[in-house]
Amino acid sequence: MRSFEIKLKEIGKIIEKALDNYLPKSNEYPSKIHEAMRYSTFNGGKRIRPILTIKAAELFDLPGEKVLPTACGIEMIHTYSLIHDDLPVMDNDDFRRGKPTCHKVFGDAIAMLAGDALLTLAFRTIAKNAQIEGISLKAVIEVIDRISLASGSLGMIGGQTIDILSQGIEIDEDTLFYMDSHKTGCLIRAALWSGARLAEAPASALDKLDKLGEKIGLIFQIVDDLLDVHGDEKKLGKPVGSDIKNKKNTFLSIFGYEKSKKLVKVLSDESKEIASEFKNSRFFMQFIDFLVERQY
Amino acid sequence: MRSFEIKLKEIGKIIEKALDNYLPKSNEYPSKIHEAMRYSTFNGGKRIRPILTIKAAELFDLPGEKVLPTACGIEMIHTYSLIHDDLPVMDNDDFRRGKPTCHKVFGDAIAMLAGDALLTLAFRTIAKNAQIEGISLKAVIEVIDRISLASGSLGMIGGQTIDILSQGIEIDEDTLFYMDSHKTGCLIRAALWSGARLAEAPASALDKLDKLGEKIGLIFQIVDDLLDVHGDEKKLGKPVGSDIKNKKNTFLSIFGYEKSKKLVKVLSDESKEIASEFKNSRFFMQFIDFLVERQY
Repeated sequence: MRSFEIKLKEIGKIIEKALDNYLPKSNEYPSKIHEAMRYSTFNGGKRIRPILTIKAAELFDLPGEKVLPTACGIEMIHTYSLIHDDLPVMDNDDFRRGKPTCHKVFGDAIAMLAGDALLTLAFRTIAKNAQIEGISLKAVIEVIDRISLASGSLGMIGGQTIDILSQGIEIDEDTLFYMDSHKTGCLIRAALWSGARLAEAPASALDKLDKLGEKIGLIFQIVDDLLDVHGDEKKLGKPVGSDIKNKKNTFLSIFGYEKSKKLVKVLSDESKEIASEFKNSRFFMQFIDFLVERQY
Repeated sequence: MRSFEIKLKEIGKIIEKALDNYLPKSNEYPSKIHEAMRYSTFNGGKRIRPILTIKAAELFDLPGEKVLPTACGIEMIHTYSLIHDDLPVMDNDDFRRGKPTCHKVFGDAIAMLAGDALLTLAFRTIAKNAQIEGISLKAVIEVIDRISLASGSLGMIGGQTIDILSQGIEIDEDTLFYMDSHKTGCLIRAALWSGARLAEAPASALDKLDKLGEKIGLIFQIVDDLLDVHGDEKKLGKPVGSDIKNKKNTFLSIFGYEKSKKLVKVLSDESKEIASEFKNSRFFMQFIDFLVERQY
């Protein structure tokens, strides 16, 4: 596992170099907004979504660097969603990955604008994928459509809407699955799909990858829910118990610890079965284990 | 002037029909977010930006309906910016166009998410322009790039950042021009540019149209500043004096009434001179007069 985490960090560094390139410099006018955008982008994230985009492209023999604009655009969308989620009107969280959240440093208004600006910049960055040799314009247009759908009101924002509306109210299992598959799963699915689509993967493979993304997304969210109560604050970089404080519905609150753990095991077996159908599935096998065992 | 306003309303209706088509229905799950998105989209806006996109396309012999997806995407970006602007963390405004603002009806969290969702949907909608016959994929990619640049931290959000940071502080004339040309001008320029680019207008014409957009944007903002103090609350649909309440720097506060009026006259003459160079400039001539004389 250690050597796999080192591998993830290495890909993460390539992504961070590209992000540094796509984001306006800190001293570019008006500097305050660019400082805020960079503060939240470079704060030790795991870069899971862009890594999946790169690895999905490589699965279909397209070098990972050819999808870097799209991978970075997806990471910008993820970062904006965290900034807005942390705001006082949403979860009101003061810490993320061991550092004060964006609005604690820059104020609520600039934090909101920094989130807006990252979301806006994301689509420009994805569009830059059209300039890379060997990438079809049609694929880029489809990827923009897919990522927008996955992160909008019928995807990620749809999940966040249910999250907000159901605080303090107990929801049923279907609503929990909707909420979590949308809040986290949709963007993870789109990250995988986009890498493969840019690599001109056949439709049947895209469907298979989408199913893998659905299961990976759920594993990610269930483990997140478990870590929020049973995790180590130092490793997580934020106080545990935020979900309880915000009266959130989670896998833990609805299914309990044992049943949630079992669900993770079932999903991980199913994910590995799907992944095994691809010709070079080693990375994905290790990645699924990493998601299940992660402490942060 | 009356008949021109009727013409604007007619084009506005075509845009609203298209917006209705692109936005998820109110009863689509999760309905609360779609109600909020629709509440703010259909609230009697003048549809100035999408009308400019359509008219810019027609200037280069492309039927206006061929750029409707892009025109609607731009209007979604404008709408999201108003929702976020009205939030308590920004301008804290309770009324817009005679109705309570989005957060007054749906709460701050859902209003923020509705803004996020409209911004996200905008790029999917613009990407749909690639499906329309006769439109080149390359033009659509360039339009996405341009609209993202115009509405991001180096464009509209850059202007809003200065607006927020300079509340209660007196700024110099250069900063005022930066703030207003970015807050309002950038998206208006992009609206014109995008319509013409989709119509495959030559580079020299795109540059000319961009200069026209710059001046139109400034006229729009100066008149806005004047109306905020000297306007009629009933016609405006919101209380006057919001800028003074929020200690905003405006053309009125920095140049005074007479000098601001003179600036509008100079800009309107210059705009008409640029517009007259196009072969069929009648609409733009009338539009400039409308902007100068508008009461709402």
